[in-house]
Amino acid sequence: MRFTIDKEQFQKGLAAAARAVPSKSTLPILANLMLDLNEKGLEVTGSNSEITIRCTVPYRKDDKEIIRNVGLGSTLVNAKKLVDIIRAMEGEEVSIEVIDDAIMKIDDDRSSFRLNCIKAEEYPDIDLEPSGTLLDISCATLTGLVEQSAFAASLREQRQILTALHLEAENGKLIATATDSARLARKEVAIDSEVRFTANIPARLISDIVKMFDNAQTVTLSVSDRKMLFDFDRTVVSSRLIPGDYPLTRSIIPQNFNDTLEANAGELLSAMNRVRIVSNESEAVVTLSMREEEVEVSAKSDASGSALEKISTFQYTGDRLEVSFNSQFVIDAIRALRSEDVVICFLGEMKPFVVKNPKDDSVVELITPMRTF
Amino acid sequence: MRFTIDKEQFQKGLAAAARAVPSKSTLPILANLMLDLNEKGLEVTGSNSEITIRCTVPYRKDDKEIIRNVGLGSTLVNAKKLVDIIRAMEGEEVSIEVIDDAIMKIDDDRSSFRLNCIKAEEYPDIDLEPSGTLLDISCATLTGLVEQSAFAASLREQRQILTALHLEAENGKLIATATDSARLARKEVAIDSEVRFTANIPARLISDIVKMFDNAQTVTLSVSDRKMLFDFDRTVVSSRLIPGDYPLTRSIIPQNFNDTLEANAGELLSAMNRVRIVSNESEAVVTLSMREEEVEVSAKSDASGSALEKISTFQYTGDRLEVSFNSQFVIDAIRALRSEDVVICFLGEMKPFVVKNPKDDSVVELITPMRTF
Repeated sequence: MRFTIDKEQFQKGLAAAARAVPSKSTLPILANLMLDLNEKGLEVTGSNSEITIRCTVPYRKDDKEIIRNVGLGSTLVNAKKLVDIIRAMEGEEVSIEVIDDAIMKIDDDRSSFRLNCIKAEEYPDIDLEPSGTLLDISCATLTGLVEQSAFAASLREQRQILTALHLEAENGKLIATATDSARLARKEVAIDSEVRFTANIPARLISDIVKMFDNAQTVTLSVSDRKMLFDFDRTVVSSRLIPGDYPLTRSIIPQNFNDTLEANAGELLSAMNRVRIVSNESEAVVTLSMREEEVEVSAKSDASGSALEKISTFQYTGDRLEVSFNSQFVIDAIRALRSEDVVICFLGEMKPFVVKNPKDDSVVELITPMRTF
Repeated sequence: MRFTIDKEQFQKGLAAAARAVPSKSTLPILANLMLDLNEKGLEVTGSNSEITIRCTVPYRKDDKEIIRNVGLGSTLVNAKKLVDIIRAMEGEEVSIEVIDDAIMKIDDDRSSFRLNCIKAEEYPDIDLEPSGTLLDISCATLTGLVEQSAFAASLREQRQILTALHLEAENGKLIATATDSARLARKEVAIDSEVRFTANIPARLISDIVKMFDNAQTVTLSVSDRKMLFDFDRTVVSSRLIPGDYPLTRSIIPQNFNDTLEANAGELLSAMNRVRIVSNESEAVVTLSMREEEVEVSAKSDASGSALEKISTFQYTGDRLEVSFNSQFVIDAIRALRSEDVVICFLGEMKPFVVKNPKDDSVVELITPMRTF
């Protein structure tokens, strides 16, 4: 393998694929990037046990030659070393040559590196061909869907299915649901397709993947039993899926409520963020005390003390009510709404309550209260 | 104790003193700040076993009233909670009242906090009165002295005296020396005083202290057997000293050399930073290969490969010479010189070499080479 490549484009491709490379792995071969120079361009692949990223640097881009002086071939080389070296090199172009499948020469006008490398055949088999159900969706739409729901997934591995973001496509809608069993977030978007599928993708992974979209406009999803592929802007990302059935959640979101608080999202967030300072940090329980004339946000802890604030902008309809909750859950929910105003609907002191955007029914956040006595 | 205080000035005072508060300590009382409202103003004190910081918020500053509605007194309150609460409060003024030595009420127009607090008498005795030898020095001068020397101190606690920055005042000079036994840095500055003292202050601590100077112009040092005080801009910092004699280092800096390399500091730094990427990261050995026509910087490791660069701007006088060293030591030394050009003076392949600023003899960096065979 041999090529001379525009340094900036090479660096971008390496950085994208290297996001999948584990810093430590039980499989030492995965510390490498696979470089494959073929008729499509330079394919750079990085992988760990959960995710694979392949980024293709094309021969030409916008009439500019990116790769020249080409000899096709492939190799494996340590990801961290190669990324660090290319980042540190000063020239506009870098020349690469692999000798005897063992040494990669990397040169520009100033510097000359020799990196040990390995035959590409030693890399695990990776299948990045689309299979199963296909769906084109705008990157902005998918990003919003994920950002408004995935945070509610469980971080604990004990019940693995709850670490997933559950995706369900049917009737021209794509619905994302996440729950850690104490809270639930659900967001739906319209899609321009009648496809049907369900998939349980690790919430952490899809949250990382949507951050890779950069300026890409559209992403093609392909969903099969075992994996989900994201194809966008010369990049293909493959994520493992979590096997098993996702719990049925639709029926647990109440539709009718007794008491409703409408408030300014910013004011409510600031008040909660302040009063929770006195709470026990691992729990951070905050209490909302509501009556039609007055709404108070408060917190207390035996170790530290107590805190109290009155809310100035609100409308409360219902009986006198006091509800306590993990403040982080409500803060996450309000932020995910992306709304200036927020509506919180209650059924009673110890019943799950719903946090909503008054102008947008596509997103629902459900939270279970906590006892404070 | 009772007072109403300008929030911004209060926050600054708390933040300064809280820098000394340990995040964890075997002495739980040190998790608190001491607040003492006396005739000087509000003294805020934070401490750990090594360092104590006292910051005084004055009653008035530049004709502006800072503290009003005063009832003298003192108390102890959890540093982290108080700092977080005052930072989060939105009003321009904060009112504090301590009730029964047990509860601190903290109020502004919007929020109302009650923090548990403790009698001030429970705090360890802290003596921040100046004693021993006094020296006034410009903050900029002391900062330069520390930054150009303290990095060479040892980080290992095995030989505690080598974790010190050794300060020595005599004959109108203040000399700072640090060494971890593989390298040594020495910087001297003129002082406007004939005081004599020596002190071994933990290098880590004095490096932190000079970062606190902000806009202060002059600092008054007071050096006694056990501690060193820094008094600047309404702030007093006390640091422990390390007992024992510092090794005699003056005679180990060679005065005459066989071979001399003069080079551009920036070019040499970039080249070393690039080639060391292939080195074993914990060691990062780099080799300089010099002859009068050519200077090369190189590195190699069995695991990764090798790297080589030629330097373009240099003047080398001497025999053909190859010297290998811990590249971090030379990078630290060159950076500490703060010079566009750098002179490196050699006595031979395995003899300690000196890194100097060609235009400034006040700072000397000595480095022991490493074997690579």
